[in-house]
Amino acid sequence: MRDVAIIGVGITKFGELWDISFRQMMTDAGARAIEDAKIDGKQIDAMYVGNMSAGQLIRQEHISALIADHAGLVPIPSTRVEGACASGGLALRQAVIAVASGIHDFVVAAGIEKMTDVLAEQATGALASAADQEWEVYEGATFPGLYALMARRHMYEFGTTEEQMAMVAVKNHHNACLNPCAQYHMEVTVDSVLNSSPVALPLKMLDCSPITDGAACVILAPAEKARKFNDTPILIAGTGQASDNISLHSRLSLTGLRATSEAAKKAYKMAGVGPNDIDLAEVHDCFTIAEIMAIEDLDFCKKGEGGKVTQEGETAIGGRISVNTSGGLKGKGHPVGATGIAQAVEIVQQLRGEAGKRQVNDAEVGLAHNVGGSGGTAVVHIFRRGD
Amino acid sequence: MRDVAIIGVGITKFGELWDISFRQMMTDAGARAIEDAKIDGKQIDAMYVGNMSAGQLIRQEHISALIADHAGLVPIPSTRVEGACASGGLALRQAVIAVASGIHDFVVAAGIEKMTDVLAEQATGALASAADQEWEVYEGATFPGLYALMARRHMYEFGTTEEQMAMVAVKNHHNACLNPCAQYHMEVTVDSVLNSSPVALPLKMLDCSPITDGAACVILAPAEKARKFNDTPILIAGTGQASDNISLHSRLSLTGLRATSEAAKKAYKMAGVGPNDIDLAEVHDCFTIAEIMAIEDLDFCKKGEGGKVTQEGETAIGGRISVNTSGGLKGKGHPVGATGIAQAVEIVQQLRGEAGKRQVNDAEVGLAHNVGGSGGTAVVHIFRRGD
Repeated sequence: MRDVAIIGVGITKFGELWDISFRQMMTDAGARAIEDAKIDGKQIDAMYVGNMSAGQLIRQEHISALIADHAGLVPIPSTRVEGACASGGLALRQAVIAVASGIHDFVVAAGIEKMTDVLAEQATGALASAADQEWEVYEGATFPGLYALMARRHMYEFGTTEEQMAMVAVKNHHNACLNPCAQYHMEVTVDSVLNSSPVALPLKMLDCSPITDGAACVILAPAEKARKFNDTPILIAGTGQASDNISLHSRLSLTGLRATSEAAKKAYKMAGVGPNDIDLAEVHDCFTIAEIMAIEDLDFCKKGEGGKVTQEGETAIGGRISVNTSGGLKGKGHPVGATGIAQAVEIVQQLRGEAGKRQVNDAEVGLAHNVGGSGGTAVVHIFRRGD
Repeated sequence: MRDVAIIGVGITKFGELWDISFRQMMTDAGARAIEDAKIDGKQIDAMYVGNMSAGQLIRQEHISALIADHAGLVPIPSTRVEGACASGGLALRQAVIAVASGIHDFVVAAGIEKMTDVLAEQATGALASAADQEWEVYEGATFPGLYALMARRHMYEFGTTEEQMAMVAVKNHHNACLNPCAQYHMEVTVDSVLNSSPVALPLKMLDCSPITDGAACVILAPAEKARKFNDTPILIAGTGQASDNISLHSRLSLTGLRATSEAAKKAYKMAGVGPNDIDLAEVHDCFTIAEIMAIEDLDFCKKGEGGKVTQEGETAIGGRISVNTSGGLKGKGHPVGATGIAQAVEIVQQLRGEAGKRQVNDAEVGLAHNVGGSGGTAVVHIFRRGD
């Protein structure tokens, strides 16, 4: 397998983008990545697009061809990859495998979701279809409900508090204020989180990531060709993916995601690094409790101590390990299919030293962690500055 | 890149399967493939599933995790791939690339669609979402309508007749009668096709492939390990994929699919063979005109002569090149996400000499051709008996 590097990144503003179409949003992010990589569009060999639910949300399947067409990339192979909210991370992984195999050299990994101003009655219905329809959704479970069950159990087993969960939101909203493309430029406090409307207790509105439109794109190349395009290519040193029982009732534990641990194990092994080597991480904080579980499952701290290390500031920018410097799903926004790619964009900008006010000093190794549904899928990538 | 072989195949009956759920259908096909490969399920390293529209049809995205879970394959990586009716072929291609890269050894490529007894108002609405919603579907175009435009132009330019198109249906229904898993065991005649109800003239009901439930599965292995499992491993000698403008109005020609030609060119080159080396082919006959265009675009005959060679029996079983021995989409049925994998199952059974009454004598090289939408995506695979 060949080593693989990222030579260009692009991202749209995240938010309620009512004046820009699905196809234009993706092309905007792509054009920025092409420009960033200083590559000619004609050199692109293939494309993978992560998208969860354009079929339900805008009645458009086959978005791979739609985007290749609108972007002027016909006749390259273009493939949509879906794994609920992990769709972006899975698209990145397919692109990595394609370049590593030698079948393609320059491959686009993109992600997109248009969730506001859509044809479906509401985005929540489409999101629920990431859970098991027969065993969870028909019985009335929603995603806030499923994560609320995990939060309750985490509180019961480890003494995690609602205040600690709120501190995840406070940190990530703060980071989002430093990120020009984030959906929210709005600080929140522990009190405002605790006093926000109940959604599925113990989760309140400000414990939940929002509904977002957005697109993101990275361009991959064989590492040995990357330096022709870029002085600071970012190596994708490890990739790991795993599945788990899709329904909570079948799982061995409610206080962590097995798919995350399994995927991380593979990614760490492939990259030849451990949790202590990671300078910064983008983790899948669809709810505040999800970030607490993620930093435990990724072995950044012991199981049960995720709330405590958050409270102690270890995951703030410049802390022991900077988590969700972009603002995360919570503050930057969560256009589900785009999220996994947007995480890679953030890590690349940080490792290049181009993250502006939210820059982590001397960042050399970064990790991105993307989850599908309530943990039926997880994918972890490890990135390294290619000096 | 490593050479890749198929060591096991499995398929369900195709048809209106109201008494079997989506997840069970997939697991049935998978269990048959596992049994056929004489492999232990624990050895499976990863899975790719082709599916177009479970989100719209049964309100279930994230089917990759659902299936891994139901099949007892957790925690392996499981990924859904979508490219409209080419979803199965694209899943096969990702599996090939994954094994070729060396990241995985034993990989499942599966495909499934549940199109009858579904939640959506009708399957036709979901199928239409493979076309361009803004430029085709909102204006009233349906898939029979789009292919009818291509048929009219083909008749105008090359003198192709409705009788010749009907002969595709006659041949494929005949072949389906020889295939136990086919949806239709019913011969049709040129007259019965010509007199069937108009759908979008010149296409009548019996020019159109049906709405179908079904699942299919193949198991891939590195070629050097294949013989441990199977005396007749089937090599995947070539894979090619291409895109085209998703809307007909943007295309240079209406009488052929550029994506097919481009994908075929790559697959032939990779396999080191040409059209004359192909003994049998499964081609994407979603409508009878589509088979006529396919055999031209795959260079089995000159452009414009697809109708004539069909009329002369060159594509019948035992003809110059046997096309759609399984019955094709027309006679075997077209559960869209499963179709690309079902084509591979047929080619493997033929190359092993296990195709029963529809066996092509001395078949050594086969080709599978899978199309998404009206040709926005095409994928071609070439298979060779691994003697």
